[in-house]
Amino acid sequence: MTEQDTEIEERPEAEEEAYLLDKKTVAAILYAVDVGDAAALTELMEPLHAADIADLLEQINTYDRRRLIELYGKEFDGDILSELDESIREEVIAILNPAVLADAVRELDSDDVVDLLEDLDEPQQEAILGALEEPERAAVTQALSYPEYSAGRLMQREVVAAPEHWTVGDAIDFLRSHEDLPDQFYHVVLVDPRMHPVGNVTLGKIMRSRRDVKLADITEDIFKVIPVDQYEGDVAYAFNQYHLISAPVVDENGRLVGQITIDDAMAVLDEEHEEDILRLAGVGEGSLTDRVIETTKGRFPWLAVNLVTAVLASLVIAQFEDAIAQVVALAVLMPIVASMGGNAGTQSLTVAVRALATKDLTGSNVWRVIRREVLVGLVNGVVFAVVMGIVGLVWFGSPTLGYVIAAAMVINLVVAGLAGTVIPVLLDRLGVDPALASGAFVTTVTDVVGFFAFLGLAVLWLL
Amino acid sequence: MTEQDTEIEERPEAEEEAYLLDKKTVAAILYAVDVGDAAALTELMEPLHAADIADLLEQINTYDRRRLIELYGKEFDGDILSELDESIREEVIAILNPAVLADAVRELDSDDVVDLLEDLDEPQQEAILGALEEPERAAVTQALSYPEYSAGRLMQREVVAAPEHWTVGDAIDFLRSHEDLPDQFYHVVLVDPRMHPVGNVTLGKIMRSRRDVKLADITEDIFKVIPVDQYEGDVAYAFNQYHLISAPVVDENGRLVGQITIDDAMAVLDEEHEEDILRLAGVGEGSLTDRVIETTKGRFPWLAVNLVTAVLASLVIAQFEDAIAQVVALAVLMPIVASMGGNAGTQSLTVAVRALATKDLTGSNVWRVIRREVLVGLVNGVVFAVVMGIVGLVWFGSPTLGYVIAAAMVINLVVAGLAGTVIPVLLDRLGVDPALASGAFVTTVTDVVGFFAFLGLAVLWLL
Repeated sequence: MTEQDTEIEERPEAEEEAYLLDKKTVAAILYAVDVGDAAALTELMEPLHAADIADLLEQINTYDRRRLIELYGKEFDGDILSELDESIREEVIAILNPAVLADAVRELDSDDVVDLLEDLDEPQQEAILGALEEPERAAVTQALSYPEYSAGRLMQREVVAAPEHWTVGDAIDFLRSHEDLPDQFYHVVLVDPRMHPVGNVTLGKIMRSRRDVKLADITEDIFKVIPVDQYEGDVAYAFNQYHLISAPVVDENGRLVGQITIDDAMAVLDEEHEEDILRLAGVGEGSLTDRVIETTKGRFPWLAVNLVTAVLASLVIAQFEDAIAQVVALAVLMPIVASMGGNAGTQSLTVAVRALATKDLTGSNVWRVIRREVLVGLVNGVVFAVVMGIVGLVWFGSPTLGYVIAAAMVINLVVAGLAGTVIPVLLDRLGVDPALASGAFVTTVTDVVGFFAFLGLAVLWLL
Repeated sequence: MTEQDTEIEERPEAEEEAYLLDKKTVAAILYAVDVGDAAALTELMEPLHAADIADLLEQINTYDRRRLIELYGKEFDGDILSELDESIREEVIAILNPAVLADAVRELDSDDVVDLLEDLDEPQQEAILGALEEPERAAVTQALSYPEYSAGRLMQREVVAAPEHWTVGDAIDFLRSHEDLPDQFYHVVLVDPRMHPVGNVTLGKIMRSRRDVKLADITEDIFKVIPVDQYEGDVAYAFNQYHLISAPVVDENGRLVGQITIDDAMAVLDEEHEEDILRLAGVGEGSLTDRVIETTKGRFPWLAVNLVTAVLASLVIAQFEDAIAQVVALAVLMPIVASMGGNAGTQSLTVAVRALATKDLTGSNVWRVIRREVLVGLVNGVVFAVVMGIVGLVWFGSPTLGYVIAAAMVINLVVAGLAGTVIPVLLDRLGVDPALASGAFVTTVTDVVGFFAFLGLAVLWLL
């Protein structure tokens, strides 16, 4: 554990509080809400970024949230809605005055409106679509026609495109004469006459080059085109893998329909990780602002699955009731073998799930990884077998009990390494998210094998 | 589980293979290596991005890796080194011909060289520093003087800065006349006479504005300055929270010393998540390319901790040997209570650890979250108590055994919710990474409480 310990100590100081909402500010805001001082509230909120206001709304209780939003009134910004966690968006939208909501939504880029609409009920969707001006509404409706979690939902339609034969001078004149360029853009996308993207030129390169240089001669080395139906997780992967800043999105005919920028890809990467980490723990889609009843429902399925696997393990134990009645020490020691197997299996499966997500575990190395995990299980199994053999001997004075627990430990840790790798790989090949389902299967295997090996060997050698 | 299931089904099709290294290409490359055909190898590798070549090197075995690198020879690019996983970087650097290594390193930006050097042994560090030209070497040495995992290590020194009184025309003339601008830049940073950054102007805004517009009038709304000693995880958080594209880095006197761009922040976010997910599973810093012996060492500490907690739980069971000898059904059912508690505790702690990492769990809502987790434990506990009470009754024909397991289930799930939230929060306040240490503590609590409540109640009510 030394490596991690050192790392923690070496973390630069005083970082815990960076970007945390200042407690005093929160208290002052809640005081302003309590006394109903709208002017003070507006003044306190003014320096806060929309993302921080959203965090604040998530952290206070329902009652304060309603009063704050009502007092804040028409200052309420569309960006706050975008930044809000889905779990309280509907609640906040329901509180907002329809005129304020319409204003807030009109400020947003079309990709943010799409993100907002996706998770709302039909009536709230209608209300927001109704508030939009015509070209915007068409853009949003179009985006919603792409599958959920696809590049089409993620992209913005605004792209600066230029014919491939243009020079730097052409591009500069175009940019200077156009009013309605996107707020943020980093590249000019070169397109052929059929509107197929053929290259990206950064604004930096355009500024530094002479007017007569052809754009086609100064394109970026790295150029990736994203199909509009690509899964958003793969889009995020591509940005991270190839260090993309923005990438053009094309329809099924290869025609330019929009672009995705790295900030949106980063948000997706973050969400994907959140999903993986929560799924591995069997928490589903939960959020910190969910109420008790929603949280209970979210946690229930995994606990139900676990109950079934635990009962399965108990059925194994029940086969050995006579042995346990004769040697009660078996009941005392048996959870150790199962617990060690469960932990070792979780280690292997987490590494495998993560490696599958980062596309590092492939057909080229899957056998080598399986072999490694089994060997690791064997080596750790032997070490802990020796330790537990001695514990068993000293505690209960029986060398045979020592052999039994030692042998069971080796078997269960080897099985844990094997199951912890093979199960996620198989689930992935079957198209099931390994983060979601591996845990239950692997724990079942290590519980059943752990109890069976330990109690079975006890019957063979001890009785 | 319906929500997740739907989501999986709705994932756009045919995404599994996106950005995966094509099996045929890998086979062709390995064939070229086998027959020693350098020309064919170079041709096959030419279209691959450095990140993909790095992935390929990670996925093949040590023997093929050595032969491939030797055959590839001077084509070996510095970017491949940057992209390689730390676990095999040293190995690859040791294989590379010193002249090739020197060439490869000289191509890299100074921040990439820093990233490369950090994890190498002293002699390899010296070799690489020796290969650099003078100003580059000074930059790298300077960066290495900042703490590990700080903004100073992450930043690039190249920034385009402009005095705050400049106009758009001044900026354009400057950019056009300067040869050595960074490869990638998105903003011009405005600085006051003391070199304190005061604002960011995007290149897009500069291109679209008239020459006489003052830069100070077209700065970005969102402007965050990063202290050079800030923890890199907080830097990544700020980029994701505030949708930054690049941010200036300042020294302790507030003077501009460099900048961080979103692609580096995204890589850090990815690493932080990887660390969290692996630490939660007790895997430490492992990597898929680690050998058996390193992997075994990485997994060992957590298994050792788990052995101690499992033995603790056994000591609790040992207190009830007489009861178990009288009613063997207790041994059959007791793992169920402990297992359900362990799972519920893991759910709560994962949510808490994640919320602490995203700064969503704060002093403002910690009590509300604890109350929620306890209530969720209570509700789920009651539901599973009813189920298990019936199972106990039907299986063993004893209503009292049903009451015992039901009561123990409620107690353990409530404790799981409480411990699963309080323990990570306390560890975080004590400055210990909750992802690393919470699991062991929470499982100990749920095991001990689970066995004690079940067996203790059995003694009270049943015997």
